Amino acid sequence: MSDVGGLGERTMDSGDGQRKPVVAITMGEPAGIGAEVTVKALADPDLRRLARFVVYGMNEQLTYAADLAEIEPFWWRVPPGWPAETDRDVVVVDYDEYSILSTSLRQPSKIGGEASMRFCEDAIAAVQVGQADALVTGPISKESWKLADFPFPGHTELLAKRCRTRQYAMMFAGGPLRVALATIHEQLFEIRNKFTIGCVYNPIELLDAALRDWFDLPRRRIAVCGLNPHASENGQFGDEEARIISPAITMARENGIDVEGPFPADTLFWRAAQGQFDGVVAMYHDQGLIPIKLLAFDDSVNLTLGLGMVRTSVDHGTAFDIVGRNRANPGSMKAAIRMAVDIAARRIGRQG
Amino acid sequence: MSDVGGLGERTMDSGDGQRKPVVAITMGEPAGIGAEVTVKALADPDLRRLARFVVYGMNEQLTYAADLAEIEPFWWRVPPGWPAETDRDVVVVDYDEYSILSTSLRQPSKIGGEASMRFCEDAIAAVQVGQADALVTGPISKESWKLADFPFPGHTELLAKRCRTRQYAMMFAGGPLRVALATIHEQLFEIRNKFTIGCVYNPIELLDAALRDWFDLPRRRIAVCGLNPHASENGQFGDEEARIISPAITMARENGIDVEGPFPADTLFWRAAQGQFDGVVAMYHDQGLIPIKLLAFDDSVNLTLGLGMVRTSVDHGTAFDIVGRNRANPGSMKAAIRMAVDIAARRIGRQG
Repeated sequence: MSDVGGLGERTMDSGDGQRKPVVAITMGEPAGIGAEVTVKALADPDLRRLARFVVYGMNEQLTYAADLAEIEPFWWRVPPGWPAETDRDVVVVDYDEYSILSTSLRQPSKIGGEASMRFCEDAIAAVQVGQADALVTGPISKESWKLADFPFPGHTELLAKRCRTRQYAMMFAGGPLRVALATIHEQLFEIRNKFTIGCVYNPIELLDAALRDWFDLPRRRIAVCGLNPHASENGQFGDEEARIISPAITMARENGIDVEGPFPADTLFWRAAQGQFDGVVAMYHDQGLIPIKLLAFDDSVNLTLGLGMVRTSVDHGTAFDIVGRNRANPGSMKAAIRMAVDIAARRIGRQG
Repeated sequence: MSDVGGLGERTMDSGDGQRKPVVAITMGEPAGIGAEVTVKALADPDLRRLARFVVYGMNEQLTYAADLAEIEPFWWRVPPGWPAETDRDVVVVDYDEYSILSTSLRQPSKIGGEASMRFCEDAIAAVQVGQADALVTGPISKESWKLADFPFPGHTELLAKRCRTRQYAMMFAGGPLRVALATIHEQLFEIRNKFTIGCVYNPIELLDAALRDWFDLPRRRIAVCGLNPHASENGQFGDEEARIISPAITMARENGIDVEGPFPADTLFWRAAQGQFDGVVAMYHDQGLIPIKLLAFDDSVNLTLGLGMVRTSVDHGTAFDIVGRNRANPGSMKAAIRMAVDIAARRIGRQG
């Protein structure tokens, strides 16, 4: 992205002369805690100094959240479609047509789904045309998306579609753990019908590339979980380890990736937390998320791999039950923003 | 059990005049680390002071492990079938007919399976006839049991059979967590065919009773995990929460149990670790074991509920890879013994 706006000095990092990254942030479900965590996260001047931010959301919700938290509004409000180039630290693209304050606060709704989808679509487009270097997404309500008839179970599937990729993976970073998932938001017992060697191979390859390019690890040791108890203990409780997981690992090793497994999942995460591995591939959602949340409840970050763009996300939900009480913890949003900034800055630095 | 042996003063707890519990311990797979962790655990004089111990195992393995660890043998060796009544602190019932030292150290074998099964059978019988108050089991090799043609996937299933119960559950205690499992050693995708309301109800009821009787909690708050990601988020990723888990919870509440759920598993364990719940019921092995191992790798304890006897176990395996190197950590065995002693002493105290 070129630095338009004529105020280059404000967009330059004084340290190394490199331009600051521009980060697009979506506010998420308007009836959830997305506005609150966004405002609270960006209220930190140390964070704001690192990049420029364009928030796709609603001024109404953001102002309400700032009021409750006694934070002075620090952003510049613009209408959708307004050229994104600016020298302001924080711009809010305000979709005021979706006002829901009086009707559906704290619950999923069709209009909430439409709003949060629109924020996503526009923010994705901004990154794709080069107006932003990275995308950070706030929490959406999957139920609102369903009410609005969107055929995507979540952000990740939408992003995969818009980025025209089928090889993508969800990754989580939290505390000492970095975990990629082989399957995502699926009914546990339905996974059986789509559990393939590719399901396991792709996240191994994508995690390896992310650890190299985004986390700057020249050497990377990856471990893969078994699917069954004790990784089936040599086939005693299932054959997926032998039939699907091991071939995927072999294929990755053939391709030069330092990967081992399948290991019993219950002890593997402890080993990874001790530093024995740089990344873990989990077979399904809870297998990977239980350890992440346990070790980094308030500041774990969700990343999407394989999109061709940098995307991080809060890893919590809309938390309808605490909306409007100034009780939401911005830790995950802050961590997601910081990680997006770091990765984008590294990419900009690499491009010279 | 009556105090036979004539040396009552050695079997009495000097503190409260209550007789000391007698704890039966099985050494587990002879080619694994069972002997080493047993010797190392009982080498602690503070632990030995709390109870009397009868170890069902092999003197050959125990002596070898003690030698490597430079521990002076502290036990009295007796042949199988020898009357268990004694005033000795530690008795080893020595099944020397199964000698395997020269042949199959560090790997599963038919003879290893036969030996470890025999230790279990005799130790269970000892508890059932009242010669011991509690049972602690060392790690067996499920593969050895298979090689020896025993139709039990593990200890728990054997115990259920011998104790003539169908309502039993596996429980783990480690760090701040106490977790009971709805299903145990099963191929993950095969659970679908046996996942019933009873599967979920029984561990709720058994965990509640154990927390009351064994852990002395007059008030107990229990939480139940969902099966699917985000506990299916209102049915979006599966119907097991609505169809199976919720009815089980309702039934338990009807029976006066303070239980809530189903909750998304990834955040529930964090909440339980913060003290929001006294116990958690997990739907399958890795869901419950990942958090336990992560927070209490070296000292978590496995308990079996519903047997009518107190049984604890190490929660690690045979660790064939480190056998004979004096590297095994006795933490889990020590924790298992201590928990068995505590629970047995509480029961003895209650009987007056």
